[in-house]
Amino acid sequence: MRAIQTVVIVGSGNVASHLAFAFKEVGIQLLGIYSRHYENAQELAAKTGVKAIRNLQEIPLDADAYLYAVNDVVLPEVLKNSPDIEGLMMHTSGTVGLDVFPDRFKRTAVFYPLQTFTKDKEVDFSAIPILIESKNKADLKLIDALGRNLSTSIRITNSEQRKQIHLAAVFACNFSNYMFYIAQDLLQEKGLDFNLLKPLINETVDKINTLSPAESQTGPAKRKDFATLNKHLEMLKHNPVYLNIYHSISEQIQKINSK
Amino acid sequence: MRAIQTVVIVGSGNVASHLAFAFKEVGIQLLGIYSRHYENAQELAAKTGVKAIRNLQEIPLDADAYLYAVNDVVLPEVLKNSPDIEGLMMHTSGTVGLDVFPDRFKRTAVFYPLQTFTKDKEVDFSAIPILIESKNKADLKLIDALGRNLSTSIRITNSEQRKQIHLAAVFACNFSNYMFYIAQDLLQEKGLDFNLLKPLINETVDKINTLSPAESQTGPAKRKDFATLNKHLEMLKHNPVYLNIYHSISEQIQKINSK
Repeated sequence: MRAIQTVVIVGSGNVASHLAFAFKEVGIQLLGIYSRHYENAQELAAKTGVKAIRNLQEIPLDADAYLYAVNDVVLPEVLKNSPDIEGLMMHTSGTVGLDVFPDRFKRTAVFYPLQTFTKDKEVDFSAIPILIESKNKADLKLIDALGRNLSTSIRITNSEQRKQIHLAAVFACNFSNYMFYIAQDLLQEKGLDFNLLKPLINETVDKINTLSPAESQTGPAKRKDFATLNKHLEMLKHNPVYLNIYHSISEQIQKINSK
Repeated sequence: MRAIQTVVIVGSGNVASHLAFAFKEVGIQLLGIYSRHYENAQELAAKTGVKAIRNLQEIPLDADAYLYAVNDVVLPEVLKNSPDIEGLMMHTSGTVGLDVFPDRFKRTAVFYPLQTFTKDKEVDFSAIPILIESKNKADLKLIDALGRNLSTSIRITNSEQRKQIHLAAVFACNFSNYMFYIAQDLLQEKGLDFNLLKPLINETVDKINTLSPAESQTGPAKRKDFATLNKHLEMLKHNPVYLNIYHSISEQIQKINSK
């Protein structure tokens, strides 16, 4: 089977955009970009020098692969409205299995880059794990080769494993970012500058590269410093949401055994 | 008044150790290290080539400054048992005010490095904000000069501001680290490797340097992807603690307005 050299992108969000740019950069030819919102397809198509596709039925049928990078919620419907495609069908979701593809698609797969993609923030794909899975074994080699254009870390991962990794990623990335959000909000309340915390945040993450999270854990809860814990709860009295988060996480941290 | 050239360290934990090494490196002379646990004082003293002090009453009385880097809970008692010291008394706590010092100490101050210190993990002090405060204005200049030996970011901060910054730091550092802990725990459950998440965690923090936390926020809660949210809650059913954290944080993230 020939290597994947031509791809159609379905979707125009962060994952679709970053992958479109990344593929283009390594010489994968993009045969078209479709989005449910045609203006978005046009915008991304213009940036990448690719053709925007207005209707799913107008998708070119001769691409080697089709990358569906759309919201999990709309993926089933977008697939349902897609024409009969013989090329390799791939989605980019952490939580959706291969069974999302209707039976009429014979070559189905997952191409899930484990990363947080934000608009207007370039990412270096080379270290990003790409979790791959496919219905047919033969396709796995093609997807692996496609991924190796972008990254050195391609992992064959079944749906159950991928779902667990995605769940863990929500805590590690989305929820840690929300902790930064609360910190900024608390500083703003008193007219203080979030930049103050950046060295601390950078060190917090730097530790992860050499220590386990249990070994890295510091702070009043870890020290069982109840005087400070009580002062903090008192300071959060006016904000029941932050109070509850502070209380429940501190309770858990006290139970961590770092030895 | 002469610049601070000689310091006695009270305490032997992470903050005391890192500051002892940092001071020594920039040529501040350490006249002794006291710890309630004499063996700990001995250990740190041996590493820094300093004299270990067995009793608080044996603290040299001729140092320019005394750095009390002990747990907030024991600080009042350690101060109570200290001899009458005429040099500058400093503590390193984020949450404790100047009023912790008994009245018999006339020159009192705070020297709070805003960083997470972990045993056996060196930190670069140069970018660490050091929040300073003092009872007498004249001392503030001395403390500022002392801090500038270590860092370019010395901030005069009153107790109320420092407490709020410390509270924000608990979210930004201790609680985000706990999110990494949960992530690792979830991966271990299925025999998966935490290293997989490191590029994601590094990118999560890298974003903080160019985007606000609200702009950086991604994930199923941000997208209001209820299909994924429900799947995740289902996957966490066996762990009510993680389930509760997932639920309450996701609910809050949905309310973030990033515009």
